[in-house]
Amino acid sequence: MATETNQQILLVKRPKGMPNEEHFQLVEGPIPQPGEGEVLVRTLYLSVDPYMRGRMSDRKSYVPPYPLNEVVTGGVVGEVVQSRAADLKEGDIVLAHYGWQKYAAVKSNQVRKLNPDLAPISTALGVLGMPGLTAYFGMLEIGRPQPGETVVVSGAAGAVGTVAAQIAKIKGCRVVGIAGSDTKIRYLLDELDLDAAINYRTTPNLKKALAEACPNGVDIYFDNVGGEISDAVISLLNHGARIPLCGQISLYNLEKPDIGPRIQPQLLITSALMKGFIVTDYADRFEEGTRQLAQWLRNGQLKYTEHIVEGFENTVKAFLGLFTGENLGKQLVKVAEPTKSSA
Amino acid sequence: MATETNQQILLVKRPKGMPNEEHFQLVEGPIPQPGEGEVLVRTLYLSVDPYMRGRMSDRKSYVPPYPLNEVVTGGVVGEVVQSRAADLKEGDIVLAHYGWQKYAAVKSNQVRKLNPDLAPISTALGVLGMPGLTAYFGMLEIGRPQPGETVVVSGAAGAVGTVAAQIAKIKGCRVVGIAGSDTKIRYLLDELDLDAAINYRTTPNLKKALAEACPNGVDIYFDNVGGEISDAVISLLNHGARIPLCGQISLYNLEKPDIGPRIQPQLLITSALMKGFIVTDYADRFEEGTRQLAQWLRNGQLKYTEHIVEGFENTVKAFLGLFTGENLGKQLVKVAEPTKSSA
Repeated sequence: MATETNQQILLVKRPKGMPNEEHFQLVEGPIPQPGEGEVLVRTLYLSVDPYMRGRMSDRKSYVPPYPLNEVVTGGVVGEVVQSRAADLKEGDIVLAHYGWQKYAAVKSNQVRKLNPDLAPISTALGVLGMPGLTAYFGMLEIGRPQPGETVVVSGAAGAVGTVAAQIAKIKGCRVVGIAGSDTKIRYLLDELDLDAAINYRTTPNLKKALAEACPNGVDIYFDNVGGEISDAVISLLNHGARIPLCGQISLYNLEKPDIGPRIQPQLLITSALMKGFIVTDYADRFEEGTRQLAQWLRNGQLKYTEHIVEGFENTVKAFLGLFTGENLGKQLVKVAEPTKSSA
Repeated sequence: MATETNQQILLVKRPKGMPNEEHFQLVEGPIPQPGEGEVLVRTLYLSVDPYMRGRMSDRKSYVPPYPLNEVVTGGVVGEVVQSRAADLKEGDIVLAHYGWQKYAAVKSNQVRKLNPDLAPISTALGVLGMPGLTAYFGMLEIGRPQPGETVVVSGAAGAVGTVAAQIAKIKGCRVVGIAGSDTKIRYLLDELDLDAAINYRTTPNLKKALAEACPNGVDIYFDNVGGEISDAVISLLNHGARIPLCGQISLYNLEKPDIGPRIQPQLLITSALMKGFIVTDYADRFEEGTRQLAQWLRNGQLKYTEHIVEGFENTVKAFLGLFTGENLGKQLVKVAEPTKSSA
């Protein structure tokens, strides 16, 4: 370990429109020394997530913008390789939030210890982590699915969409997924057992296809993408429909605000509810959510898949792939194997 | 009375865009005879409301379209002039829904008897009727105002807006009204005691004026109008804001769907809630709402104003005036005086 150096990826330029490699810089430096009460964590998996795009711009969003010339922060699963904290020891696997770097020294109270016997450690970044909880609270608290209702999920093959769609199935709904490749459509139908799935890239008339897939209209629209896909779904809402507004990935890289038909008239005549949210709105209930998701996972009622890119140097590429629809399920970067076999 | 004839206004052509006199026809005919269990009602006040515009088009809305060549239906306060029902007698003042006609024979269970001693009878069409209840449930059930919050009401000088704004004041909020004439602005400030009021027609930069009037951002936006006014307000939402979507009067007469900047990104980053509603969503609580509104009225906490046009033949003109902002408060047509002095 003494001969290895740390690597970090910094945001060095704010993207306007679609980001590219030029907005980031990979830098090398010494591996940090943990202070008293800190642990040194070696990154095993790191997370790339659509919400990070918002933080790269210099404007108000859920969370403050990333500072320039600093490490892009986000979720990480790592292994404690040196401990100066009483509550963690070498070899412990932890969930941390220090982002795109190979090593970090962090206070032990800023990480959460994972139990590798309960679930594969990478799931702490996906189905049992932030994306899974996002789906859980958005679908259950805003969507409030009732048996027999029709639920449409956009971005259905992504980290959040796959979980949201399955929760609606568990609740007894007819579930229609929208995604952007035939591989994803097959996954939604064959693996997740959705009632219908529509490839928005190859369907000539999305609204017509949706109307056919939703003969009783739409009661819940779990929206990850926004834009014209949402326009089509919103035209089919039933009275009292609910729209958990989870993401708008189709708009994140536009250089100016997108325009489209105003949706208020449609929400008005259907008494529909639309609500934006961020998972931290439900922070006081994360334990409940994680417990329920883990139980569904054990029962086999909840499946997940991960799209894993190998190698720290491919982090930016993996991040950019989120916006071109490369990933099926949760997009992760695998940075290293754990020292002990705990994954 | 025997020499008088009935008059009715029919919808004879569906408007595309702004309606005009050509879409309606005033017809004369015999005064109907009440059947067993029916009463003959003579119209004293009739209501013209923005929602009626939606029903004049042949498309799905809250309520079915008006049939062509039939009377435009809507709220009426009238006097029973002949009764063949045990529960009503001549001279009783009733709220009915038979619309734009001077006389109608209706089943006694389709009207509600009013007590002229409790409040002026015309208030059953305004502050104590459908518009008042719309404001009550929209503001309290969707807006959920908390003391100290900032509330913006568009269409603030209208039948619903005046009540919504005052309820927010009663609940201890800072209330900012948007309206379209200096007379209305003075009314909002001087009579209703709002904290600020903005004339959207004369303010060069609405967003800037709103930002100044809402130094702590916007927690509730009670929307009656839609369009660019809403765009400006939505740009100022606080985290957790609520938007009761009550009307979109600026859009009702457009010939095609209006386009504008998509609002989902803003709702997303603020975890805001937007909900369409129609007063009948709360039909099982009308009694509670009416009782509370009447109590505020008696206490002097709730004021109202009516914009009264005289003469049945001016009904269409009064209706069209809703879309050019003629009315301050509830727009009514006074058709006749009661036989006894009960108004």
